[in-house]
Amino acid sequence: MTRKYRIAVLGAAGAVGTEMIKVLAERDFPVKSLTLLATERSAGKSVRFNAERVTIKKASRKSFQNIDIALFSAGSKASKIYAPIAIRDGAVVIDNSSAFRMDAHVPLVVPEVNPDELAKHKGIIANPNCSTIQLVVALKPIYDLCGISRIIVSTYQAVSGTGTDAIRELRAQSRAVVNHKKLKRRVYPHQIAFNILPQIAQFEETGYSTEEMKLVHETSKILNDQHLAITATTARVPVFIGHCESVYIETRRKISINRLRTILHNSPGIKLVDDIRNNKYPLPIMSEMYDEVMVGRIRRDLAAEKGINMWIVANNLRKGAALNAVQIAEKLIAYKGNLPR
Amino acid sequence: MTRKYRIAVLGAAGAVGTEMIKVLAERDFPVKSLTLLATERSAGKSVRFNAERVTIKKASRKSFQNIDIALFSAGSKASKIYAPIAIRDGAVVIDNSSAFRMDAHVPLVVPEVNPDELAKHKGIIANPNCSTIQLVVALKPIYDLCGISRIIVSTYQAVSGTGTDAIRELRAQSRAVVNHKKLKRRVYPHQIAFNILPQIAQFEETGYSTEEMKLVHETSKILNDQHLAITATTARVPVFIGHCESVYIETRRKISINRLRTILHNSPGIKLVDDIRNNKYPLPIMSEMYDEVMVGRIRRDLAAEKGINMWIVANNLRKGAALNAVQIAEKLIAYKGNLPR
Repeated sequence: MTRKYRIAVLGAAGAVGTEMIKVLAERDFPVKSLTLLATERSAGKSVRFNAERVTIKKASRKSFQNIDIALFSAGSKASKIYAPIAIRDGAVVIDNSSAFRMDAHVPLVVPEVNPDELAKHKGIIANPNCSTIQLVVALKPIYDLCGISRIIVSTYQAVSGTGTDAIRELRAQSRAVVNHKKLKRRVYPHQIAFNILPQIAQFEETGYSTEEMKLVHETSKILNDQHLAITATTARVPVFIGHCESVYIETRRKISINRLRTILHNSPGIKLVDDIRNNKYPLPIMSEMYDEVMVGRIRRDLAAEKGINMWIVANNLRKGAALNAVQIAEKLIAYKGNLPR
Repeated sequence: MTRKYRIAVLGAAGAVGTEMIKVLAERDFPVKSLTLLATERSAGKSVRFNAERVTIKKASRKSFQNIDIALFSAGSKASKIYAPIAIRDGAVVIDNSSAFRMDAHVPLVVPEVNPDELAKHKGIIANPNCSTIQLVVALKPIYDLCGISRIIVSTYQAVSGTGTDAIRELRAQSRAVVNHKKLKRRVYPHQIAFNILPQIAQFEETGYSTEEMKLVHETSKILNDQHLAITATTARVPVFIGHCESVYIETRRKISINRLRTILHNSPGIKLVDDIRNNKYPLPIMSEMYDEVMVGRIRRDLAAEKGINMWIVANNLRKGAALNAVQIAEKLIAYKGNLPR
């Protein structure tokens, strides 16, 4: 009989937490027990998991006794509080917040890209940022094939990356605009409906946003290449689900576009959607149907023979967050006997 | 007394034509008579110009007799048919279509950037594509100051660039989505509401869209630099008015970001909106309030000392089309005696 695991989800009522619970069920993860946790606001709600209804409990210092794997998605502050407690009580934490991602002792893992990092964990495995995950899944096969020296990325990120409040805000503002009513603003610093905000999270002294710097630092860490020159512009767009990235790369060696398409087509976790004659390319609305990272619009820079443009789209709640976390858990339990501790 | 001019607008009922009529009135252009022309579908409608109502007539081979300046915005096909007729009858044509833009004998003009090209006209002056205009207005002062060797641009383009049908489609689809109704699709190959389409116009053999190649070719022509390495990815976003561009450039000489801000602040046609501490940066919804090209999020590439990122936004119907055309007409009549012919 397969071993089953006692799973906790912290942030179970959030946009990502909700998706984590769905993904665990869909992928038939060997769950012995499911503990759903949240901060004060959502405690008491109940959620369907397979045939049962599970009530969300308020997280406490005792919540992680008798847990094997804890999936965290309740923000950095909650992660910093509860991760040490969960580890002390014997759980392995898979953390979707940015709290530990750049910690040299914490593996930052995308299973298709750097699964071997998992073995180094000391109780916490960090799940990368959504915009990083889809970028590295698409670029890793190219990196391995011909090297990459330069990445310049502009993003088009969906509001669900901010959370359920932002989804409601986009819907309410859109309704107000089409009905010629006054709109309300609470989550974002500016109207998001029918607008584009070149700001995700906060700005740092350098002029870059924390989201832009996550793309830079996390991509370097995951590809384990400190010499990779990366620069990013991240923008929020009025889309519910699905992040787009317009990506320019310079490879170290020249590669034919056909070869590149073949490699991507055959790589795990990637769906090639690149048939422009039939107007087929990755779209945010398609990302709700596919778990893969979609890649298309692949073409050579006409002014630089090692320059390549491409368009990368993924479901930010699933591969960008919940699915990647559950895939980490799947890899974790596949290391028989070794992990979880 | 100031000389006044007999003006015709072809495509007077379209999104850009409507704006041309507004801009002529707002800027107090010396109009002696205004002839509004359109294809079959819109003829008979009437439009307000200052205190009068002007009826739109069906364009014919005789429409351009007694016209000094003809503003065209009815698509390439109409421009190809009517431009030779208008010129024969003595008008100067300012053409917003792509029909003549890359013709070596036709000046392609942005008044802030290359006004002297105007003098070379032989009856037609081409108005550049919307996405090109805002790019060159923002980059010209930098180009003159320290040279530019590389431009990598990703666009976020509003539906009004497609026309009034597209504005209606975005509104109708958005209403359908927020009301959980089925949506209809006619103008774009995919749903545009709450979605991003990495396709503007058609695709060429190279894998680039015609919109992407316009950015490449027109920018080279206007900056008069065939060695400039430009590559572009253009995408349609669910925004009514205002195109955004995430622009990466490499300058020939290193320049300080403060110097660059000062230069842009003092350049004609540019509004610097770059105060991230107060969450101020260019937004599409701001573009309806400003005629200038807005530039912000200016910052150095942390991995390349001559690399600079910036965010450029402008009203695609005004500076991107109608306003630039009227500004060309203003420059044209300022060449006393010489032009119009």
